[in-house]
Amino acid sequence: MKATVFRGPGDLRVENVPDPRIEQPTDAVVRITHACICGSDLWFYRGIQKWESGYRCGHEWMGVVEDVGPEVESVKSGDMVIAPFVYSDGTCEFCQKGLHTSCVNGSAWGKTNDGGQAEAVRAPFADGTLVKLPDSMEGDDALLAATLPLTDVMGTGHHAAVAADVGEGGTAAVIGDGAVGLCAVLAAKRQGAERIIMLGHHDDRLEIARKFGATDIVATRDEEAVSEVLEMTNGGAESVLECVGAKSSTDTAIAIARPGGTVGYVGVPHNDHVVDRWRMFGQNISLHGGVAPVRAYIPELLEDVIAGTLDPSPVLDLTVDLDGVPDGYAAMDEREAIKVMVRP
Amino acid sequence: MKATVFRGPGDLRVENVPDPRIEQPTDAVVRITHACICGSDLWFYRGIQKWESGYRCGHEWMGVVEDVGPEVESVKSGDMVIAPFVYSDGTCEFCQKGLHTSCVNGSAWGKTNDGGQAEAVRAPFADGTLVKLPDSMEGDDALLAATLPLTDVMGTGHHAAVAADVGEGGTAAVIGDGAVGLCAVLAAKRQGAERIIMLGHHDDRLEIARKFGATDIVATRDEEAVSEVLEMTNGGAESVLECVGAKSSTDTAIAIARPGGTVGYVGVPHNDHVVDRWRMFGQNISLHGGVAPVRAYIPELLEDVIAGTLDPSPVLDLTVDLDGVPDGYAAMDEREAIKVMVRP
Repeated sequence: MKATVFRGPGDLRVENVPDPRIEQPTDAVVRITHACICGSDLWFYRGIQKWESGYRCGHEWMGVVEDVGPEVESVKSGDMVIAPFVYSDGTCEFCQKGLHTSCVNGSAWGKTNDGGQAEAVRAPFADGTLVKLPDSMEGDDALLAATLPLTDVMGTGHHAAVAADVGEGGTAAVIGDGAVGLCAVLAAKRQGAERIIMLGHHDDRLEIARKFGATDIVATRDEEAVSEVLEMTNGGAESVLECVGAKSSTDTAIAIARPGGTVGYVGVPHNDHVVDRWRMFGQNISLHGGVAPVRAYIPELLEDVIAGTLDPSPVLDLTVDLDGVPDGYAAMDEREAIKVMVRP
Repeated sequence: MKATVFRGPGDLRVENVPDPRIEQPTDAVVRITHACICGSDLWFYRGIQKWESGYRCGHEWMGVVEDVGPEVESVKSGDMVIAPFVYSDGTCEFCQKGLHTSCVNGSAWGKTNDGGQAEAVRAPFADGTLVKLPDSMEGDDALLAATLPLTDVMGTGHHAAVAADVGEGGTAAVIGDGAVGLCAVLAAKRQGAERIIMLGHHDDRLEIARKFGATDIVATRDEEAVSEVLEMTNGGAESVLECVGAKSSTDTAIAIARPGGTVGYVGVPHNDHVVDRWRMFGQNISLHGGVAPVRAYIPELLEDVIAGTLDPSPVLDLTVDLDGVPDGYAAMDEREAIKVMVRP
């Protein structure tokens, strides 16, 4: 089959690789129908994250089950399924608590595991990992596109909202207008936030943020943005959703949190890890969050997507086929696309 | 009256100063019966925190009301009262939420405010700040000594336990065997923790920790301590109570937190503010806490002290009179005392 393989920074190739097959009794083999390129994929693409030549790519995907091992009970051949960006056994202490990203047997797709930017994958722990999609979704391209972000960015935006304790009638500030930040706006609205302040810098994305429910836009940076938010909220937002992971965005998040407020952080930390603990300490500001246990959130979010009340698909603004994956990375790298859908 | 005045690092003097008097209609004047020296007082004593000559000292005190302004309703002359380490108006948004330390009109005792290491203080916002003690406590020295730590260290240890979400049957690791860490052990036990692991290095203090309810002692440091806790908990403690505030203790706290766990931090941050956000992110570890809103906790903790189920007084291992305050600081500076009680 064909799969996207990392050969070096900026050098992704769609190569022929061995077909996946059942190796463990808990495995499934899934033919990919939809995948995405993730903002975090740009890390290895840009050489910031050190990857080895030969690593597989893609951690966001949906598909049709082709084969299952003898112990798999929840899905069967022919089922349409969605996977979160890490697989998990579904049975360990952490999976039971809904923290599937800390599964003692789990791992992310890609690298030495199969990746989703391919024709098919071997999915370990199919029962703990995959969620069956209703048969009625077959062929409904719009609904499937609305479902695809549940593999990662929508679940991650939701995690930010949950971690930041966004509540009915509350004020949420979202930092970052990438796909996760935009989904965080949807999530904050879904949690009942009355006021949603989006901090971002790209007109096209801010337009989507407005459509998703942002009530206020702050397009300035750093201290200027902080002053603006503090003024419009009369002292800060109860919930801040940090969807970038840089030092500057973390500083901003802590600076605009209301005393006693919570920063829900889902941006992958980069550069360095300094935070202003003095302000955190003095004003009892919490840092809550981390890598999103998306598997735990898929069922409830899927329900809303099917009901038509949740549609994150506007973040998918470019579609490529499998051979187009390298161009898709380039488009995201150059910010010509927010997020790329792959249709193998 | 006499009051402790800062004249430079290592140079505290008990000087004659003007008697406090009612200045605002919401003020009370309180004659001090009990005060403490706090570990955080050592910061200015050691010159780490820059203080100006003439600043007043002492933020932990109890006393008898001598006079009240015309708007004070909750206490009257002759009442025994306890104060938290900051005063607060009791009416603002943050006081209403129980976050009195973020009171928009609040401030800590000492510096240009009156301090508790003195014969008397002017207490602003008496209704929002002071808590009346039952008349029956008069003359009960043991009970009053058990109450005195509610001004700060016991409330702060309790805040660590609340922030770290210590629950019935849970595992709590307490970092730091100072007065706050020891009180955090009491607080964790009070919250129902089944296992309480104390990380500290001083035999006499660890002995108190055991008496307070610590079930395990870890006396090693840094990586060795981390390995020990991870092994004994099979992967970390759900609740970590960080009662030091140094980089090393914060690193240890994050390293020994169980995936999905919470670090309740009450140690005043010093040195620098770097935290291992990568582990926090990957394992969804929260940082929760800050300066303790002790005023919010006094009523419930006082109830337990009066009922005889809570007694933090063993942390007060040296008593001085007002003239003995400079010697009290020296004893704490040299770690000859855990915490000093002042009886003016």
